Amino acid sequence: MKKIITISRQFGSGGRAIGKAVAEKLGIPCYDKEIIERVAESSGLSRDYIEATGEYSTHRTWLGRALSTTHAAGTLNNEDLIWVEQRKLILNLAEKGACVIVGRCADYILKNRSDVLSVFIHADDKSRAERIVRLYGERAEKPEKRLKDKDKRRSAYYKYYTETEWGVASNYHISLDSGALGIEKCVEIIACAYGDSE
Amino acid sequence: MKKIITISRQFGSGGRAIGKAVAEKLGIPCYDKEIIERVAESSGLSRDYIEATGEYSTHRTWLGRALSTTHAAGTLNNEDLIWVEQRKLILNLAEKGACVIVGRCADYILKNRSDVLSVFIHADDKSRAERIVRLYGERAEKPEKRLKDKDKRRSAYYKYYTETEWGVASNYHISLDSGALGIEKCVEIIACAYGDSE
Repeated sequence: MKKIITISRQFGSGGRAIGKAVAEKLGIPCYDKEIIERVAESSGLSRDYIEATGEYSTHRTWLGRALSTTHAAGTLNNEDLIWVEQRKLILNLAEKGACVIVGRCADYILKNRSDVLSVFIHADDKSRAERIVRLYGERAEKPEKRLKDKDKRRSAYYKYYTETEWGVASNYHISLDSGALGIEKCVEIIACAYGDSE
Repeated sequence: MKKIITISRQFGSGGRAIGKAVAEKLGIPCYDKEIIERVAESSGLSRDYIEATGEYSTHRTWLGRALSTTHAAGTLNNEDLIWVEQRKLILNLAEKGACVIVGRCADYILKNRSDVLSVFIHADDKSRAERIVRLYGERAEKPEKRLKDKDKRRSAYYKYYTETEWGVASNYHISLDSGALGIEKCVEIIACAYGDSE
């Protein structure tokens, strides 16, 4: 029986909404923004800063991140500190019981547990662009550019801290195209997979 | 409503068995070995040759394939001929009505149709190694080596003819880990997605 669902998602794919709806359907908690609150509390860093750097690299490639001069040898910078705190928190949440965890490399952090169902949500650029404009409004930057930039930085963050490729099907139990399937169908599929899987 | 299901799969992931079971559950035909028969008929090449080269590159990288000296400029070699015949056949099968098509880049060949549900099946190396030994018996070559080799050649074939990466989540509507979920659960999920999707 799977207890914990981790949801990784492309920006604008509706992964967060799917996570919430799955949790509601299954009657278990969903951790998303709550993680930011708690890491802010334990690290003493601001919520905005954690939201901006807790799963987005400040560089657009993992190599840029790796070669960053803000890192002195053998020291932790603020991004590393957030990673360490988030990791501890996610390990603790998983110990507490059944839940959904959105983003923050939870799939990787919990990969040694056998009771995790790891999900990746993606969608075509057109659906995602429409979604981010509907949810977050227009910006000076075109939505396609915002998608590309966020995905690049999420991917670089993931690769830097996990040494694994983001968005490769074989790294997840289930990957779903929310643009083609629709949000509700994704929720149904995840609940079905969670149901009585081994 | 989706009418056609294409199943791409890692070698040993049970994708073929899943395709057959889904087709049976939905009461629609499943095309797999039948494609080999028909291409043999229309091309005049042998079944064994088509099975060996109809979705496996004779090279382990797409670049090796692209630089192959068996290709004279502007001519089709036997592999290209099979590709052309398979493609025609798959386009015709899709016109005929609801069905499941296993392998042979059908997801790419039918990508302009809006009634296709494209699925990718993968599994961890251990589950796949056990499966190929159970189904195809022991060979001189270790199962892990057989898996790696087949995957590389399938991936090279796919990339050469479609210019798209094989096994990247965002290229499929659904990707499933049959090792973690089990064959039956995969069948259930695909049938659920097919059911009343837009």
